Amino acid sequence: MSISSFNPPRRTLMGPGPSDVSQRVLDAMARPTVGHLDPTFIGMMDEVKSLLQYVFQTTNELTFAVSAPGSAGMECCFANLVEPGDKVIVCQNGVFGGRMKENVERCGGTAVMVQDDWGCAVDPEKLEQALQQHPDAVLVAFVHAETSTGAQSDAKTLVELAHKHGCLAIVDAVTSLAGTPLKVDEWQIDAIYSGSQKCLSASPGLSPVSFSPRAAEKISNRQSKVQSWFLDLNLVMGYWGGEGKRAYHHTAPVNCLYGLHESLVIVQEEGLENAWARHQQNHLILRDGLEQMGISFLVAEQDRLPQLNTVFIPDGVDDAAVRTRLLNDFNLEIGAGLGALAGKVWRIGLMGHASNQRNIDLCLSSLRAVI
Amino acid sequence: MSISSFNPPRRTLMGPGPSDVSQRVLDAMARPTVGHLDPTFIGMMDEVKSLLQYVFQTTNELTFAVSAPGSAGMECCFANLVEPGDKVIVCQNGVFGGRMKENVERCGGTAVMVQDDWGCAVDPEKLEQALQQHPDAVLVAFVHAETSTGAQSDAKTLVELAHKHGCLAIVDAVTSLAGTPLKVDEWQIDAIYSGSQKCLSASPGLSPVSFSPRAAEKISNRQSKVQSWFLDLNLVMGYWGGEGKRAYHHTAPVNCLYGLHESLVIVQEEGLENAWARHQQNHLILRDGLEQMGISFLVAEQDRLPQLNTVFIPDGVDDAAVRTRLLNDFNLEIGAGLGALAGKVWRIGLMGHASNQRNIDLCLSSLRAVI
Repeated sequence: MSISSFNPPRRTLMGPGPSDVSQRVLDAMARPTVGHLDPTFIGMMDEVKSLLQYVFQTTNELTFAVSAPGSAGMECCFANLVEPGDKVIVCQNGVFGGRMKENVERCGGTAVMVQDDWGCAVDPEKLEQALQQHPDAVLVAFVHAETSTGAQSDAKTLVELAHKHGCLAIVDAVTSLAGTPLKVDEWQIDAIYSGSQKCLSASPGLSPVSFSPRAAEKISNRQSKVQSWFLDLNLVMGYWGGEGKRAYHHTAPVNCLYGLHESLVIVQEEGLENAWARHQQNHLILRDGLEQMGISFLVAEQDRLPQLNTVFIPDGVDDAAVRTRLLNDFNLEIGAGLGALAGKVWRIGLMGHASNQRNIDLCLSSLRAVI
Repeated sequence: MSISSFNPPRRTLMGPGPSDVSQRVLDAMARPTVGHLDPTFIGMMDEVKSLLQYVFQTTNELTFAVSAPGSAGMECCFANLVEPGDKVIVCQNGVFGGRMKENVERCGGTAVMVQDDWGCAVDPEKLEQALQQHPDAVLVAFVHAETSTGAQSDAKTLVELAHKHGCLAIVDAVTSLAGTPLKVDEWQIDAIYSGSQKCLSASPGLSPVSFSPRAAEKISNRQSKVQSWFLDLNLVMGYWGGEGKRAYHHTAPVNCLYGLHESLVIVQEEGLENAWARHQQNHLILRDGLEQMGISFLVAEQDRLPQLNTVFIPDGVDDAAVRTRLLNDFNLEIGAGLGALAGKVWRIGLMGHASNQRNIDLCLSSLRAVI
């Protein structure tokens, strides 16, 4: 056996994530590794926390990055907030609502499913009915930005309904964070998770999370231990907690955090509102170009995520062949359909650093060439 | 708020990990991010699997890197192999045996603890007694290389005892992999986990694991679902599994895996046996230098890990002040004591890329300067 160093091609990443990572972020990841308890590293972690509070628009103390991908961020929210026997209302309008159900059940909870069609936003009326039918529910969970469909739900209204019925709200913001308006404190979200590789345009592997004081209180008052040692917030917070004091819990992914830090500095430089506006403007340009080619969208305009454009594959077009040609001839990655939408749609991301005119032009011209 | 890019100092990392990451590995991490389902990335993942099989000395199909630090690798082993009600014999001779107990209990199992003094190897006779007293035990777990003490246990003998009594064996090899002889197939280890940031000298954030066919069979025959969705091997293997086909499970930490790949290529270039010998030779040089300064070791010579030298802090020396001066004046990190050994010992790592003459000289001369 003799295996050589790996030299990846330079792709343009317009799938559902990872998105293009800027040279600044890549350079940051290559800076010298320091110890995870080094005072300079702890200072950087404090900055990551402040920057995450900014992008989440929150003052929540319990705001940090889980040392693993978004799926672990999801599990962190459920494993800490669901106790055995808890009833959780899960709104599903795509793949990731189904994964929430799996999480609830594996934590010993009961999931009550509220179903909406894939490609639609979550219907607040259906949630309200479920809350009325299940007054013993303690949590509501939904996906703000469904990565499998490109649909955006009205997080503010859904959280209000949850609170009105005495439930805390868990929100999946994997694809929304930094791409579309999201205001954790103003909307009173209790637990939220995201991923580093979508609109933040850092490398995959970290999951930003934030918990309201009410959620933190529920976690400290648990009757049973959190079933995951690695994700137990009562332990993790000894490490990410305040006043510069860090108790060893696990070894943080040092260089990945360098990259996340740099990506957050870039968002701060642009300004969050400017980033949201840029995503929206670029969506409109891409939309016009696609529609001129006769390509139509899965999601109605008012529910559409600007950073994730899910479109129907034109009749008679070979899904896999087109994506392979885009990749091989143009170094362009777009996303396949997921779950029930496999083979029916493409998912074209305009996320973070990848949401720019050059990428739109490349996508439109190469699609024209291969279809 | 205005936070700038982070520029870490260049440290020499001679603590219990992370160890020095070579420029080759840092450069690899900065290569362009590709999609986690990109054919070139899948090819690289296949190479990572082959290289991990080499460093673990195994042909186990179920060999891959968990997308999170070593603590999650530990949890991956326990969450998949322990079912509610299972009795697990845990040998403890340091901090990490205690963490194994936590894992067993959080998985709904019962832990029978076999205690040895911190700094000693696990005593096979005590394990055998426990196995005789608990014929209903189904698993034995122990730490091959205790990162909190620097003691090495006789993994081959302990696994033989487990098998003789019908148990599978889970082994913590976080600090041993690639630093000291470890032969998964020859010793018939059933489940093993390690970390990327010790003797492999990659950045922290990944946990190499391997499972024997017997362990894989126990996992597929479970009565209950694995409590962690993220770590459920029945799902993860759809992604890391054979024949180049990858089902989406979670988004792999792409750039971290570039780094791990490069670090494994470096081990392959040196040759595993040469790496083991280098660690041993450098340990002897450091040991002689430390003993000439009147510094003595916690662990008896025959049980000592060459890559982790745990020494008593000389009488009258201020632990924290010395470590701070080493860091500030010499950019040198050595490790503090952990748990019961806090304030009593230092842990001086000579791991992977950091196990070299320059580091030994720096450590000895700067310790001489500050003590």
